[in-house]
Amino acid sequence: MYADKTPSHIRQLIRNGEYNDNTSGLAPGFVQGNLAILPKAWADEFLQFCQLNPKPCPIIGMSGQPGQFMLPELGEDLDIRRDVPRYRIYENGVMTQELNDISEVWRDDLVTFVLGCSFSFEEALLADGLEVRNISEGVNVPMYRTNIECRPAGRFSGTTVVSMRPMKAADAIRAVQICTRFPSVHGAPLHLGDPSLIGIEDINQPDFGDAVTIKEDELPVFWACGVTPQVAIEQAKPSFCITHSPGYMIVTDLPNSRLAIL
Amino acid sequence: MYADKTPSHIRQLIRNGEYNDNTSGLAPGFVQGNLAILPKAWADEFLQFCQLNPKPCPIIGMSGQPGQFMLPELGEDLDIRRDVPRYRIYENGVMTQELNDISEVWRDDLVTFVLGCSFSFEEALLADGLEVRNISEGVNVPMYRTNIECRPAGRFSGTTVVSMRPMKAADAIRAVQICTRFPSVHGAPLHLGDPSLIGIEDINQPDFGDAVTIKEDELPVFWACGVTPQVAIEQAKPSFCITHSPGYMIVTDLPNSRLAIL
Repeated sequence: MYADKTPSHIRQLIRNGEYNDNTSGLAPGFVQGNLAILPKAWADEFLQFCQLNPKPCPIIGMSGQPGQFMLPELGEDLDIRRDVPRYRIYENGVMTQELNDISEVWRDDLVTFVLGCSFSFEEALLADGLEVRNISEGVNVPMYRTNIECRPAGRFSGTTVVSMRPMKAADAIRAVQICTRFPSVHGAPLHLGDPSLIGIEDINQPDFGDAVTIKEDELPVFWACGVTPQVAIEQAKPSFCITHSPGYMIVTDLPNSRLAIL
Repeated sequence: MYADKTPSHIRQLIRNGEYNDNTSGLAPGFVQGNLAILPKAWADEFLQFCQLNPKPCPIIGMSGQPGQFMLPELGEDLDIRRDVPRYRIYENGVMTQELNDISEVWRDDLVTFVLGCSFSFEEALLADGLEVRNISEGVNVPMYRTNIECRPAGRFSGTTVVSMRPMKAADAIRAVQICTRFPSVHGAPLHLGDPSLIGIEDINQPDFGDAVTIKEDELPVFWACGVTPQVAIEQAKPSFCITHSPGYMIVTDLPNSRLAIL
């Protein structure tokens, strides 16, 4: 019922309170983004953190001035205060509330970051005929903390979180080729094969999301994950912060194909 | 002493009988090719075989007419009868002699095929800072027969032969990216990880070339190999055939970078 609506129409429904579910499967072909909103006093260091760690933290949009809530580069009418179906508010690193609209808590010093998300490359993998296990099993993608250190920036630091999709070797090679075209949605995988080499002890016990089946003739393939900046934010405990609720993304007007570098 | 000479100069030395060693390391930066010369009565089917199996059999040059021995597209003065340091002559599938010059056995019905070789992509891997184990250990690359069937064409058929280079996962991912740019020198790997999945029983017992060290934290990475068409030719037993001797390639004027599709 919502899958065939334009991104603009979906945002309008969200803005008017007529849609408040997760955004998975909405507006196929268009980029959805992770959200991080921080006070200017924290935003510069967060920007630096993203710049130093582009694979887990690819910025696809950012407000030009503190306080700016319209992001026309991502959608002509896009109001970041009202167009995400569910937000999480953090104070000093602790989540204090979930809201469907942040107009009431908006401040003139807030800087918005929209980060690329795996929906875009999963769509490209599916379009190529590859199986994406979390989609075929109808669960959240399994995600793991690793021992791969992010490059720290000011108060932001931490290790890389990865998502995992099991594939036959030939499909993994094809996935590297496809995802290489999309550096702003995590790009090529970081690792494949032996999970212990990146500090994952039990592949069947993800730290976030759900476990998926890994068949005998498959390799686990690991991508840098957008949960990485969220973990870095939790660790930094900024005085104030707003994110999207997991799965409740900002739907943009950018076609996924526009993220392809070639 | 020969490494800094131009491809044209090297071919001249070979043509004059002043150089008759293998061509490994000669004319760095320039494409070297595998050679297959077949009578017209066999050449059409061989061309079809290469077309159907482009990863192991990438054609980078071909004579325009039967009997044509100059290949100006690969080198202005390139004479395929005299510019390879060592040739093998096969009759009905049996090697009958090795020659440094095939002018005496040349026939008007012979069609020449020059196929891309792994030297070009190994150079690209090294230039990117990756280790190529067979080079660092100073041995021939290990090659294996697999259970991956080639698509047959007329009398030509067989299974794919692969070369193997062990790498850490992150390097293997980078190698996929680099080699994808070079489809005419075997392109991206065919397989990585478990050798038994492509029918290789003992990774330490290559069918051709030499075994190399595989470290604990490495995956074997497998590329389609130019020995595949040689095996298909041996199996087809054409009445007459000329190839280069392994390692004694045709040195062309094509820069390796010209083979990059991007």
